[in-house]
Amino acid sequence: MLGNFSYHNPTKLYFGENAISFLKDELTQYGKNVLLVYGGGSVRKNGIYDEITAILKECGKNVAEVSGVMPNPTAEKLREGVKTAKAHQTDFILAVGGGSVCDYSKAVSVSVHCDEDPWEKYYARFEEPDCEIVPVGCVLTMAGTGSEMNGGSVITNHEQHLKIGHVFGDNVMPKFSILNPRYTMTLPKYQMCAGIYDIMNHICEQYFSGEDDNTSDYISEGLMRGLIHASRIAVQDPQDYEARSNIMWTATWALNTLVSRGKSTDWMVHMLGQAVGAYTDATHGMTLAAVSLPYYRYILPYGTKKFARFAKEVWGIDPAGKTDEQLANAGLDAMESWMKELGLVLNLTELGATPDMIEGIADATLILNGGYKVLNRDEIVQILKASL
Amino acid sequence: MLGNFSYHNPTKLYFGENAISFLKDELTQYGKNVLLVYGGGSVRKNGIYDEITAILKECGKNVAEVSGVMPNPTAEKLREGVKTAKAHQTDFILAVGGGSVCDYSKAVSVSVHCDEDPWEKYYARFEEPDCEIVPVGCVLTMAGTGSEMNGGSVITNHEQHLKIGHVFGDNVMPKFSILNPRYTMTLPKYQMCAGIYDIMNHICEQYFSGEDDNTSDYISEGLMRGLIHASRIAVQDPQDYEARSNIMWTATWALNTLVSRGKSTDWMVHMLGQAVGAYTDATHGMTLAAVSLPYYRYILPYGTKKFARFAKEVWGIDPAGKTDEQLANAGLDAMESWMKELGLVLNLTELGATPDMIEGIADATLILNGGYKVLNRDEIVQILKASL
Repeated sequence: MLGNFSYHNPTKLYFGENAISFLKDELTQYGKNVLLVYGGGSVRKNGIYDEITAILKECGKNVAEVSGVMPNPTAEKLREGVKTAKAHQTDFILAVGGGSVCDYSKAVSVSVHCDEDPWEKYYARFEEPDCEIVPVGCVLTMAGTGSEMNGGSVITNHEQHLKIGHVFGDNVMPKFSILNPRYTMTLPKYQMCAGIYDIMNHICEQYFSGEDDNTSDYISEGLMRGLIHASRIAVQDPQDYEARSNIMWTATWALNTLVSRGKSTDWMVHMLGQAVGAYTDATHGMTLAAVSLPYYRYILPYGTKKFARFAKEVWGIDPAGKTDEQLANAGLDAMESWMKELGLVLNLTELGATPDMIEGIADATLILNGGYKVLNRDEIVQILKASL
Repeated sequence: MLGNFSYHNPTKLYFGENAISFLKDELTQYGKNVLLVYGGGSVRKNGIYDEITAILKECGKNVAEVSGVMPNPTAEKLREGVKTAKAHQTDFILAVGGGSVCDYSKAVSVSVHCDEDPWEKYYARFEEPDCEIVPVGCVLTMAGTGSEMNGGSVITNHEQHLKIGHVFGDNVMPKFSILNPRYTMTLPKYQMCAGIYDIMNHICEQYFSGEDDNTSDYISEGLMRGLIHASRIAVQDPQDYEARSNIMWTATWALNTLVSRGKSTDWMVHMLGQAVGAYTDATHGMTLAAVSLPYYRYILPYGTKKFARFAKEVWGIDPAGKTDEQLANAGLDAMESWMKELGLVLNLTELGATPDMIEGIADATLILNGGYKVLNRDEIVQILKASL
């Protein structure tokens, strides 16, 4: 049943091949000093950087840059960005990149006017911002994290072997995001598929929880069916605009709070995957892929009905002649086949994890209690070993 | 394929049995002079009026009232409300009721600071507001129209036999809406089922258009599957909170612009139904139900593939051994059975329409061009006759 909840998502979205044409109007609503944030330089190669700096110039903005934001942005990099943002007296942060760049920009936005160490305050102690928040806008170049329309921000601390996500409130969500599916097309197939699995798993994390009959689950099923269909086209032809546009739009709605309204959620695959990421620095979506099947097969007996529903409604498996358990297992088998079609990494070894890391990864895994089975540390170790 | 579009829906939603507890905090953000708008008095009987006026008093608001807003709010009633709102120097409009009360309150909100006649400006000439807009908040007591999270406003002019909807922009959307499924439970079953069909048809109007492969259609299918399931429970037991909460939440997402993003839409059932409403003053959802099957069966040959998809994905009909046309027709047959289960009115005669009205209703029907077949006037007459 739909419990009590609120929903407020004020991010403005501009979607499509002409979406960038709205950037100028949006920028004029904010102050002169803009901090332009981007990643490893692919935006310089594919022309997006030039397009955006021309618009910033046209708007008469005074621009400082933070570049080199890594796929798993670090606490050190965050401190560096905050320093630059302070020195620039930043009025507005423009994030140009994938989810990492958006996540990082939000982290900077809540830290510019804060004297405490941002890692300690937001990611170690999970405190809420009590200072002025610098507004953020996004130009998205990768579909996956949903960071373009939520308050989420994941930061990695390599010294402490921790990768922690803080979900901030609607005051930290991007003011606007520009979503042009063409911008995602220069991405290597490995990254595209990692993003697709990130989307799928965001939905699964919200779906595999609770015994309720809930509108959110029906919306989730629609999104998953659409995603599976589009992904099969995109993996054959990454230049298929229709498929890529559907993937991009699904990513946004998979994690902008809609499909979790009124229900409990799991998020243990992300807890496991993030701990792996803190040890290996592997691509986020692939860490999720590598631990998912061992995790879901382990918890299946505790949520058999929902896994059976998943098999029937998402994978179209005929329940005739099957027990719930058989149906549920057939659903995960179908997901496994699809994951293989996408070429996802299905073991941690390929991502650089070694048996001697298992205990450390288990220590770094936050244990949540919203899924069908609250895991203990031994079970986490067991799942991680099965994922090697 | 997902075309170019923008999405911005800033309405804050509070959902659940305790949702009203957020009203006070919201009201304190607006000025002292509140216009309280409600309908025929059911909110006085069921205690909601008392609950809300106590909160208004607690907030120290200076309250004027417009009551007696009818199910199809008229242009005259609108002029009356604007007069009251002006005299009260209204800072904020609080709509307490169903979609009609929300629609009406939005109509007042764009007219308080406008010297022109609101019917002429917004509903006859479809102009956009160029004056200050008074903010609106909603406390919803009926699920159906989606007015709680959109800019839509339908007003009826009985003299001119016209019922016209204007979809205003995000600046006219309610600032907040309070959605307590329990508030919908005192509604007679006839009204509940009319609302359920209104929701279903909102989704169909956006679904039955275009040949694209589009995320919006997958979300629509999820919403329809959930709605059909919940409606079958609610019609057996209208006090089932789980079913009523899922219906209420589905109503909001069926018409808050999400499922139309990046695609064309139809809306001819609403054009036909609204014209019927202008002649008969019948319940909106029932006018839609009465014309739907003749309309969809008429256009089926022009959109067979989509109707076949509807049959398979929404009604779960096995396509094995069926042509697309047979499958498509089986889908509409399944919808007809479901409509009968809900006790919906499937002919215009029962709603008070007579054969001599047909020409007038046809004249009052706006012809749109987003569906699978652009109708001419003769075809409209034919569909209306088949609906008698």
